[in-house]
Formats: sequence, C-alpha cells, structure tokens
Amino acid sequence: MSMTPAGRTGLTAFVPQALTRVRAQTPLVQCLTNAVVTGFTANVLLALGAAPAMVDIPEEAGPFARIASGVLVNLGTPHAEQRAAMVEAARAAAAAGTPWVLDPVAVGALPVRTALARHLLGLRPTVIRGNASEIIALAGAGGGGRGVDAADGVGAAEESARGLARTTGGVVAVSGPVDFVTDGARDARIANGDALLTLVTGSGCALGAVLAAYAAVDEDRFAITVAAVAAYTVAAELAAGRSAGPGSFAVAFLDSLAGLTERDLVERAALS
Amino acid sequence: MSMTPAGRTGLTAFVPQALTRVRAQTPLVQCLTNAVVTGFTANVLLALGAAPAMVDIPEEAGPFARIASGVLVNLGTPHAEQRAAMVEAARAAAAAGTPWVLDPVAVGALPVRTALARHLLGLRPTVIRGNASEIIALAGAGGGGRGVDAADGVGAAEESARGLARTTGGVVAVSGPVDFVTDGARDARIANGDALLTLVTGSGCALGAVLAAYAAVDEDRFAITVAAVAAYTVAAELAAGRSAGPGSFAVAFLDSLAGLTERDLVERAALS
Amino acid sequence: MSMTPAGRTGLTAFVPQALTRVRAQTPLVQCLTNAVVTGFTANVLLALGAAPAMVDIPEEAGPFARIASGVLVNLGTPHAEQRAAMVEAARAAAAAGTPWVLDPVAVGALPVRTALARHLLGLRPTVIRGNASEIIALAGAGGGGRGVDAADGVGAAEESARGLARTTGGVVAVSGPVDFVTDGARDARIANGDALLTLVTGSGCALGAVLAAYAAVDEDRFAITVAAVAAYTVAAELAAGRSAGPGSFAVAFLDSLAGLTERDLVERAALS
Repeated sequence: MSMTPAGRTGLTAFVPQALTRVRAQTPLVQCLTNAVVTGFTANVLLALGAAPAMVDIPEEAGPFARIASGVLVNLGTPHAEQRAAMVEAARAAAAAGTPWVLDPVAVGALPVRTALARHLLGLRPTVIRGNASEIIALAGAGGGGRGVDAADGVGAAEESARGLARTTGGVVAVSGPVDFVTDGARDARIANGDALLTLVTGSGCALGAVLAAYAAVDEDRFAITVAAVAAYTVAAELAAGRSAGPGSFAVAFLDSLAGLTERDLVERAALS
Repeated sequence: MSMTPAGRTGLTAFVPQALTRVRAQTPLVQCLTNAVVTGFTANVLLALGAAPAMVDIPEEAGPFARIASGVLVNLGTPHAEQRAAMVEAARAAAAAGTPWVLDPVAVGALPVRTALARHLLGLRPTVIRGNASEIIALAGAGGGGRGVDAADGVGAAEESARGLARTTGGVVAVSGPVDFVTDGARDARIANGDALLTLVTGSGCALGAVLAAYAAVDEDRFAITVAAVAAYTVAAELAAGRSAGPGSFAVAFLDSLAGLTERDLVERAALS
Repeated sequence: MSMTPAGRTGLTAFVPQALTRVRAQTPLVQCLTNAVVTGFTANVLLALGAAPAMVDIPEEAGPFARIASGVLVNLGTPHAEQRAAMVEAARAAAAAGTPWVLDPVAVGALPVRTALARHLLGLRPTVIRGNASEIIALAGAGGGGRGVDAADGVGAAEESARGLARTTGGVVAVSGPVDFVTDGARDARIANGDALLTLVTGSGCALGAVLAAYAAVDEDRFAITVAAVAAYTVAAELAAGRSAGPGSFAVAFLDSLAGLTERDLVERAALS
C-alpha cells in the first residue's frame, strides 16, 4: 500500500523510508538500454539493492515485462531488433500495470529514436527522465540538443515537463544541477549531486533504471520519483568527497550507493 | 599433455600449477557473450594472463573458433545475429576439438534462449556453468529462476548437474556460496569467494570466460575446471579484504587476479 | 586556423597547446565502436574534456556525422546493422569535411571486417589507428594477427604505415611500446605510455576516439595526431605510478586524463 506523503515535510520524511523499502523488496528491473551503459546500470542497481535483468529481444521482452517489478526503456542506441523489443515490453508493462520508465536519449536531434519516442509516449510511461533539451523536444517545443548534452537549462524545461506529465498521466524528471520532478500538479526540486556525475557516462541513464526500481515500491509515483532522485544524488555527493577525478568517482559512487543510510538522506537531501 | 591429478590431494596441488600454465600459454579466448559484461569479461581475462577476442558475428565466429584456444557462449542477451554466430562457433569448436563453455543465463525463464540452449546442448559443450536455477532448468528438472538470480541453492542442483554432465559428456560447474563441479563421476566443492561478487554484474559471466581459458591448458576438464573456480574465488576473497563496497571490490578483484600467486592458492583454496 | 608547428621543436611545443584547445572546444565525437569498449571510450572522452555520442544506427549515423566534430569507426564487433551505419557515417563525414578515424580491429584475420575495411579505405579516413599487425594487414602486406594482439613489432609496420598514409592522403598511427605516427612524408615516434595499458580492454580503441577529438581542433592532422598520442600515453604513465594492477590503473587513468596539465606534457612528452 502506498503511504502518500502530504506536502514538503512528508516528502522529506519519505525519502529515507523509500530507500529501506527498495532494499527490502529487491525490485527486479528489466532494462532495455543502450550499449554504452549496460554494465554501469546493472552495477548501480545491484549496489542500491535492486536486481537488474537486461532482457531486450523480441519474444522475451514482453513476457518478462509481465513478471518484472519495473521496466526501463532507454533510447540511447536503438538498433532495429531492440526497438521491436522496446515496443513489446512497454505494451506488456502497460497491460500488466508494471511501472515503466522512458528515457528519450537525444530525442529531437535524431529521426529514428524521435519517431520511436512519440510512439512509446502513446503507451503512457509511468515516468519520463531526461535532460532539459530532451524533455523540451519530447514535449514538442524545441529542436533537441546535440546528442546527450543538455544545451538548455532545467528551468527552461519546467513548463514542457508539466505539460508532458499532464498529457501522459505520468511523472517527469528533468536532470540537471538542480533536478526537477513534476506530475503536472505537484513540483519538487532536488538540489543535491555533483558535477562529477556529468563526467561519468551513463550516470543519467542509470538513474532511469533507479527510477524504475523505486516506482515498483510505491504507488505515489511523484513522491517515489523524488525519493529516487534524492538518494541517487546524495550518494553522488558523498562519493565526490572521496574522489580524485571521474574514474575514482564512478567507483566511489557505487560504494556510496551500497553504503547509503537513512541518516545520510535525513541529513543531506535538499528538497524544495 | 595432461597430468591428471589423482584424488583430492592431487587436485589441491594442481590448482597452483594450473594458474602458472594459463599464464605461460596465454590462451586466446573467443567470447560470444552478453552486452552487459563484455568489457568486464575482457578485463578479467587480461588480468589473469589470457587474451580475449570478442568475435561474435556470422562468417567470422566459425573460422575464429577453429583458431581460438577456447570459446565462451553466454546466452545473456542473445540477439538474432549473435544466436546464428553462437551456433556457428559451437559447431566449429566441436569439430575442431576446441574446448567451449556454455553459460545458459536465465534459461528456463525465457523462451528464445531456452530453445537455443537445448540446441547447443546437442553440440556437447566441454563445460557448462550456471547458477543452481539455470542448471536445474537446463537439465529439464525445473521452471527456471527470475532471470540471473539463483532462486535455488547449489545443493538442490547437484543431481541435475551430475545428470547434465553424464548426458553431455562434459563438466558442469554450479556457482554459489560454495561452488560445485562435477563430471558425472567425480565431484568437488570449492568454498572460497565473497558475497561482494554477487554485487558486481558479470562476475558469473566472466568466470565462464575463465573456464574457457583454463580448459585450453589441460585435457582433464574436471580438474582444470576446479582449478579455475578456485583461482577465481580466491582472488575474490583477497579483493574483498581491500574493498569499501562493490565499486572498489570490482577494481580490487582485477588487481587481485593479476597479482595472484601460487602461494595464495596453496594457502587459501578450500576444496572438498 | 591551424598553427602548423615547424619541425620537432614546434611539435613539442604544440602538444600542450593542443590539449588546451581540445578542452576549450569540447569536440563532439561520434563513435561507431565495438560492444566491448563503448563505456570506457565514452569515459575517456569525458575525462579528457570532449563529448561522446554513440550514434551508430542507419538513418541516424549519416545525419549525425554532418554535425559531429569528429567520427570514430572501429571495426571490433561489426554487426550487420552497424556495418551499414559505418558506411553511412564515413560517407557523410567525407562529404561534410568532418575528420574521421578508422580503427581496423583484427583486420586481416577475419573476413567480414577485412572486406569492410577495404571499402572504408576508399572513403579516405583522416586518421587510421591500429597495432602493427593491423596496419600491415590493411596495407596488404601481411596475413593479420590473431585478433587484437599485435604479433608484429611497430618497427616492422613503418613502411606499411607510410604507404597507407600516401595512398589515403591521411595520417597513420601505429600503437605499441613506442608509438609511430606518419603522414607519408613526416614521421614521429612517441616513447611514452606503460605496459599496464595493454591489460585494459579498449585502451587502444579509446585512443581512436581521442584521435577523432583532436583531429577536430587542428587542420595539421599529422601534428594533432602526435599531440593526441602524447597526451594519452603521458596520462597512462602518470596513472601507472598510482596503480596496484590493471583494475586500479584503469581508474587512475581516467583521473589522470581529467587532471592532465600542460606542464605534465612539457615535462614528459618524449617525441623523436
């Protein structure tokens, strides 16, 4: 059952509880994701206490989405066979009530994935995660960035994010120096994280998988998305303090996720 | 020439010798493996002293299997083109007498790879490696796990493993807290390793590649499989002592494999 | 505008300037590369100060090559769909004047990629990077190595490299203990690096991506290739001094690339 947190104070108290719930339930997260980040994504889920499964071929993706706790569809390197599997998985997830996350990597800038993203939007993702340029492009309000870069600031994407949330009935998370989460009615900003995250490939993509893990443990998808972003970015802050550069940061980040405590989140999560 | 170790004492003495032999011969291991673990698998082979080659497309996979020292076929993300290459490689390996390892990831739970695994079994893999659920499913005695997790304990898989070894004429290695290796007549248990291995994606898959490297250096495939599992899990123990979590463990594990000595194996390998 | 360095002294002075120029321009590097090294390659580019984009499907690869700063085509695991995308990207890059790098992994030894490599040569890569065996095979003078290993020494490949540079009108970089760079008229040797680089999968492949990033910032493609190889191998030397094996070396290498200074290059780059 969902224990919906009421207002900002409730949300702050919910963040540490949500982490404990994820670890207790070990959600099984099916990832249909890009070739660059598969290993890092699986390691992030394992460190957090979830269970990854990269099932992304036709005839397996659909059946698996019915038994998975959550599904991630990330459009980073969408080869033809994987595109078919993505539609199959999203459709099965939608039919089974499995929460699923859409990460529209570089949408707007590139034609194949842009068409696919629009098709997937019609299957109503539970959560959409992207940078500002991707969210603006997906909402139909811009021309996209130059790939995975966010040319636009998070602030510029807030209206697009709210509109996208209302259209799909889901939650939208915009990644940036301050993260923004909205369900179209409620908003939250999470001011945690570290610039080193932007120097580790797949740090945004792996957050998408974490959102799918979290979405599996609470039906208030707005609150649980905020909790996921806060845990992820607080772990990054803790890791940055023990790093000498992007290589050691990526290692320390996995250690931080595994060692993250409720107390860390109470002391550091910066919601507004 | 194979120097078959006689009995448990011989097996214990064989473990350190086998490591030295792998390093002296630098076996060339062809990996047809899943998209999540390719990089980690190659790094494990390099750290150990073997040479990885990820040749997994049709028309190249077969010819290469004839010149490789050993071949790994891992069913983790079996896209259509890779499935064709896997059959080509397994057939060529079988015809050329190249030892080859089958890792039936998530078999039983998912239809495409289950059909492929049964087909590949007919080509008589030299070694089969899996967790308990996978071995039980492959032997036809169960319904499979929920992906890469092992829902069943190693003990529950012993009879399935022995049966599978007798049917295929090969060796079966079951991964778990205590590893189990059998050729249908002889059994061994290896009580090394660390729970941190389960938090690093691909740690089981990379062991499959190590089994292929080891199988290339001795014709007693039971003894050499035991030696491979012992070296791998002793390296993990050594790494765990220098780790602050799963991120730093994965790094330390590669360092441990590269630095592993005969003496480490003499002092630590726990065979029974 | 290119500031062509005249002679050896100019080249030595150019190496540190080139690093600063790469960081100032953040070149966007499109990578069509093999499945083993995607994550490491992206992390190397990010650490250096460039921006990676793994756009490797037909209908997207061509359009993106027109807006990218540089393109890498690496033949390590050339699946059918990626092969089509590679030709599309190389053709678009050539037409748009985007510099592009060809890394002919294991060419000579394997038929599909060898045919593809010869086709791509006709599109005149800006830079070709390989080990000695690959360069000799690509120049048509040998039978290839046994995969990614370099069976031949760098010295044995010098004439092949010069010939290949003259035929294509590009630059050829041969990787080894001492790297060799030639445009057919000018030669340079870079005596930096560390043997640990050979124990990290993708260290050669990621250098190919770095060559594409560097090629974007200067029109003297010989000098800029020398500058890229020097920066990469000096970073490796610095990392080796802080490593306990190949796992910690890979981590330290990313930290070193991110922290690399002009002074490091002035003090350490060993050109002749």
